[in-house]
Amino acid sequence: NDIKVETKKVDVNDPYANEPVRHPALVVANHKPFNAETPPTLLVDHFRTPNEFFFVRNHLPVPDVDVSKHHLQVEGLGVKRPLNLSVDELKNSFAPVHITSAIQCSGNRRANMNAYKKVQGLMWKETAISNAKWTGVRLRDLLIHSGVDPNDKQIKHVHLEGADKDPTGGQNYGASIPFEKAMSPETIVAYKMNDEDIPRDHGAPLRLIVPGVVGARQVKWLKAIRLSDVESPSHWQQKDYRVFSASVNAGDELKWETVPSIQEYPIQSAFCIPQPGAAVSRSEETIDVAGYAWSGGGRGIIRVEISTDGGKTWQTADIEQDPQQDQEHMWSWTLFKASVKIPEGVDQMELVVKATDRSYNTQPETSAGIWNIRGLLNNAWHKVEVKIKD
Amino acid sequence: NDIKVETKKVDVNDPYANEPVRHPALVVANHKPFNAETPPTLLVDHFRTPNEFFFVRNHLPVPDVDVSKHHLQVEGLGVKRPLNLSVDELKNSFAPVHITSAIQCSGNRRANMNAYKKVQGLMWKETAISNAKWTGVRLRDLLIHSGVDPNDKQIKHVHLEGADKDPTGGQNYGASIPFEKAMSPETIVAYKMNDEDIPRDHGAPLRLIVPGVVGARQVKWLKAIRLSDVESPSHWQQKDYRVFSASVNAGDELKWETVPSIQEYPIQSAFCIPQPGAAVSRSEETIDVAGYAWSGGGRGIIRVEISTDGGKTWQTADIEQDPQQDQEHMWSWTLFKASVKIPEGVDQMELVVKATDRSYNTQPETSAGIWNIRGLLNNAWHKVEVKIKD
Ligand SMILES: [Mo]
Ligand SMILES: [Mo]
Repeated sequence: NDIKVETKKVDVNDPYANEPVRHPALVVANHKPFNAETPPTLLVDHFRTPNEFFFVRNHLPVPDVDVSKHHLQVEGLGVKRPLNLSVDELKNSFAPVHITSAIQCSGNRRANMNAYKKVQGLMWKETAISNAKWTGVRLRDLLIHSGVDPNDKQIKHVHLEGADKDPTGGQNYGASIPFEKAMSPETIVAYKMNDEDIPRDHGAPLRLIVPGVVGARQVKWLKAIRLSDVESPSHWQQKDYRVFSASVNAGDELKWETVPSIQEYPIQSAFCIPQPGAAVSRSEETIDVAGYAWSGGGRGIIRVEISTDGGKTWQTADIEQDPQQDQEHMWSWTLFKASVKIPEGVDQMELVVKATDRSYNTQPETSAGIWNIRGLLNNAWHKVEVKIKD
Repeated sequence: NDIKVETKKVDVNDPYANEPVRHPALVVANHKPFNAETPPTLLVDHFRTPNEFFFVRNHLPVPDVDVSKHHLQVEGLGVKRPLNLSVDELKNSFAPVHITSAIQCSGNRRANMNAYKKVQGLMWKETAISNAKWTGVRLRDLLIHSGVDPNDKQIKHVHLEGADKDPTGGQNYGASIPFEKAMSPETIVAYKMNDEDIPRDHGAPLRLIVPGVVGARQVKWLKAIRLSDVESPSHWQQKDYRVFSASVNAGDELKWETVPSIQEYPIQSAFCIPQPGAAVSRSEETIDVAGYAWSGGGRGIIRVEISTDGGKTWQTADIEQDPQQDQEHMWSWTLFKASVKIPEGVDQMELVVKATDRSYNTQPETSAGIWNIRGLLNNAWHKVEVKIKD
């Protein structure tokens, strides 16, 4: 189902001439490279986001990989037997595993942070996050097969390289994860997404799934895995996806080496319903709200709460979670729902949501303590204004 | 150095008649059972808190354990060869390991939360936390020696029992930790604290050290370890050390089974210097501040920041960390220091501190989202008012 884009005139010099067809309902944040959110009302309709609605975060043109010719290399520090596996060899040589895991862009909710104080980057709203069932093979099985000693103290990081290539400079997308996370049983090289072959926009034929970690490390169109004592030298590992202090402002020198690369995500939650500016009749007495919560590192969501008085009092929302995952290994997101009473005598109300995870981390009230020039990892309380009509 | 308390008349019916002598500088929160904080200025003087100044959190009278007769039992689900080890056997049969690890009471900073809205419990200020070097043997080594299969999926929790006993009901102190944490290499049965035999107040002769986890699970006077499919039935596991929603108020029914037991601590930081109400001369132009930061789960502190304008702007503090630990396995606390400019034209200033951990979790601004009736796990921004004298 990867139909070529039909255009009247294809500019053969446009590196984006061969992009996949996308569902027209996607909310586009950028065309080239393509970046789009899931429509919020569709997002909370499904515990596992259908593939065509899964948010898309591309850094470069989508490569058109021939699955019959694609190979995955495993090499580098501590690898005794380098691997060069076809997709069929990968599928047939290692035990398949299934895991439902959310992926969230580190720029999700950047527009909320920008409203607090201007930041730089794609203005993602609240739905640069989705949840899917992934099928693949354990990265640890591949590494052990290549002769890696799980207790090798020299190996610190695992580099990942995608088949997507910068059309101006020729660099492929790259990232790395800690060796310990690479050896953890939840980290898989996936070849199926919601029981279908992974679509082109999501990494066909192979995507690394690193549950509990930010999207940028879950490399799509995966073609090489390299073990090392240092992090990936890739632009996206070294000069992006790091969160500066609030004291670093526009125009200041960015000392990337002084801040760690993002790996695990902090606790997050947001409303998908209602949308800002929605209007509700006072006669309905209550308003239905819905959204998602998630935290990095497998830390399960233990509660989601909603306030209509700016955080003085809270109502606990009903939640839906993956029954196969426990609170210490909760890779999947949590969906929430509540029916919230409309306060008397007001023309508008502010809905606030915040979640708590298994380590009792919670979200900050505003962006005051987390604001950063690149607008990354905004997880302040999500607030939505609703009009009350008589 | 465990000298008997000298009193004029010892009431032999008083279960607290045989308590150890304590350093007079400790700030006592309660006498029976004994609970005391480290004086704040002493706390930041030492990266490893000296034993006599280490905060004390006892639930019951301090047992007087004869080290030559004491035995540690290992038994329960999946144990093929139950153990009953003397302290000497423990020391001589397993490899010794050293780890510097902070212990924080889940009630630390309760008084700050109580100032937001009244809570129930001992009114700990900011220094129910300390950091020490522990020496002992890996719990995983003991468990494997007892025949436990590390991949046994039936074993979910490890119960810990102390020699301290409730003088009214006869129940010993107990708690449990997840099996996965028990098998983690940082979890040790310690017999030394800062290179000395563990003092009576801190668990002589054996204390379980569970780095990254709340103090209540790091059982002192450890006498039994029992593997199980469920959590410890102990009062302190089941009916205490769980954090209710802010919607649960004084007088409400406490449905303990609906909230998870505390294990990992959320991100925390606080000032030790200055103390609230301190006065500083305007002519000094700057004020020196110092304190600690720490996060559960081994998540290292990546920055500590200080504000004098309520969080609009931030200054990064200098930090001291354990050079032997990395940001993914940071069990030790972080000490911070800064010299902060005194603002012009004000009679008083409010200092604010907040920290960020490796997963980019931060502290909430106030107790609004974390208030709970038992006043546990308060990690709101710590604020201290200082007077400026002309
Ligand atoms: Mo991202
Ligand atoms: Mo505690």
